[in-house]
Amino acid sequence: MLSPQSAIPLYQQLKDDLREKIKTGALGPDERLPSERELCAQYHVSRMTVRQALAELVNEGLLYRTHGKGTFVARPRIDQELVRVTPFESTLRSKGLRPATKILGSRMVSADYEMATALAIPLLSPLVNLTLLGLGNEQPVAYYSAYFPEKIGHKMVEAARLRLSQGVSFTTYDLYNDLPEVSPARLTQSFEAIAADDRLAEILQVSPGKPLMHITTVVYLEDGRPSEYRHSYYRADMYRFHITRPAK
Amino acid sequence: MLSPQSAIPLYQQLKDDLREKIKTGALGPDERLPSERELCAQYHVSRMTVRQALAELVNEGLLYRTHGKGTFVARPRIDQELVRVTPFESTLRSKGLRPATKILGSRMVSADYEMATALAIPLLSPLVNLTLLGLGNEQPVAYYSAYFPEKIGHKMVEAARLRLSQGVSFTTYDLYNDLPEVSPARLTQSFEAIAADDRLAEILQVSPGKPLMHITTVVYLEDGRPSEYRHSYYRADMYRFHITRPAK
Repeated sequence: MLSPQSAIPLYQQLKDDLREKIKTGALGPDERLPSERELCAQYHVSRMTVRQALAELVNEGLLYRTHGKGTFVARPRIDQELVRVTPFESTLRSKGLRPATKILGSRMVSADYEMATALAIPLLSPLVNLTLLGLGNEQPVAYYSAYFPEKIGHKMVEAARLRLSQGVSFTTYDLYNDLPEVSPARLTQSFEAIAADDRLAEILQVSPGKPLMHITTVVYLEDGRPSEYRHSYYRADMYRFHITRPAK
Repeated sequence: MLSPQSAIPLYQQLKDDLREKIKTGALGPDERLPSERELCAQYHVSRMTVRQALAELVNEGLLYRTHGKGTFVARPRIDQELVRVTPFESTLRSKGLRPATKILGSRMVSADYEMATALAIPLLSPLVNLTLLGLGNEQPVAYYSAYFPEKIGHKMVEAARLRLSQGVSFTTYDLYNDLPEVSPARLTQSFEAIAADDRLAEILQVSPGKPLMHITTVVYLEDGRPSEYRHSYYRADMYRFHITRPAK
C-alpha cells in the first residue's frame, strides 16, 4: 500500500500503483476503475490525491473518462514506426489485435485540382479511387482513401480483391509487394490532427468531433513519377506514430 | 464564371474558383464566406452544388465552420519539417506570422515513473521543468513542457531568459545552439492526435475537446544519455508536420 512517510508524494505512489496494475493486466483494457470514493477508502488517501493521480494518468493516456460513466483503462495504442513501413497485419498482431481489412469501394474518378497537383498529372485525368477500412478485433481503426493513375489502380484493386479472398489483411501500401513491376522508391507524408466530421465519425465509429490523425501520403516510383495519393485517417485513441532521427 | 457545359462538374469548378481566391488572397484568412444562399445566386448553381464544394474544402482544411456563424477561410497551417529541425523563429516567419516566446515557468520537480523511464535516471531524481508558450501574431500556437536533468536544466533556463531579454523567439530545441557543451545527437518522437483537456484548452486558447497534436520527444546526446524529455502540444488548426522518406 501507499506510504505517507515516503519522500514520494502520495498521488505519485497511487499513480505508480495504478500504472503497475495496468501494466501487469490486473486492470485490463476498458475495465472501469473503482469510483473516486472507493479509491479513497481503498488507498486511505484524500479525494484530492485520487483526483490528481487520475487526472495525470488520463493526461498520459493510460486512462480515459466517459462522461457520467466513470474512468476506464485505455487500450494501449498501436505503435506505427514512421521510418520503416510495417505491414498492417504484423503491426496489429504485435498489439494483440486480430487484423482485418474491408474494401469499402473502388471507382473511377476524374482528378480534381488537389489530386492532379499531388500526382503531377493533368486535371480530370482518370484515376482509380480505392477505399479500405482497417479493423482490429472487428473495430475500425483506420480508413484509407487512395487515388492511383488508372493502370496502377486497376492492378491495385485486383491485388486487393485477391488478398481479401485469401483472408489476409492489408493496406494499399502492402499491395505494392504484390505488384513487382511497380516499385515505390520514396514517399512524402504530412500529419495533421483533425476533428472527425460526420462522415469520418460514422466510418470509424467514433463520435463526431473526436480527434483523428490525418496522414496525407504521396508515393513516388524510382523514376520520380507519383504512383499514389492517399488520405489515411486513424482513430487517435488507437494509434501513436514514432520516429527516430538525427538531431541536426 | 462556372460553365455548365464543361466536363468538370460544377461543384468542382466552384471549389477551384474558391481555392484560387484563397490562394491569391482575394479571400483572406478568417474572412467569412458569403452564405450558401448568396453563393447560389452569385455562381448560378444549386444549393447542393454549393454544399458539396464547401464540404470538400472544409475537409481539405481550406475552410472551417463555426456553429451558427458561418464558413470562414482557414489560415494556412505552419509546415514543420520532421527530418530537419527548423528554428521556431524562421518556421513562423515563413508563414507570415510574427513569432514570440513566453516562459510560462521553470521549477524543480522529482522524476516520476514516466520521466525517470524516459530519461533513464532513478525515480525522484531532481529535474528542471521549463514550460514555454510559442506565439504567432500574439496567438498561442504551441505549448512545450520540457524536463531536463538538473545541470543541463539550469543552463537551459538561463539560456531561455537570455533569449527572452534579447527579444528572440525560441523553443527548447533552439536553446541547444546556445550551449555548445551540450550537443544533441538524435531524438525519438511520438505523435498522437488528442482532444484538448480544460488545462491545455486554456493555455492554447481553444475550446476544450478541440484536436491538438501531441508530440513526445526524448533528446539524446552523443554519449547516448538522454538530455531532455519534452511534451509539445500544437494547435491542430495551425500546424501540419511533414516527412519525406525512402519507401523501403
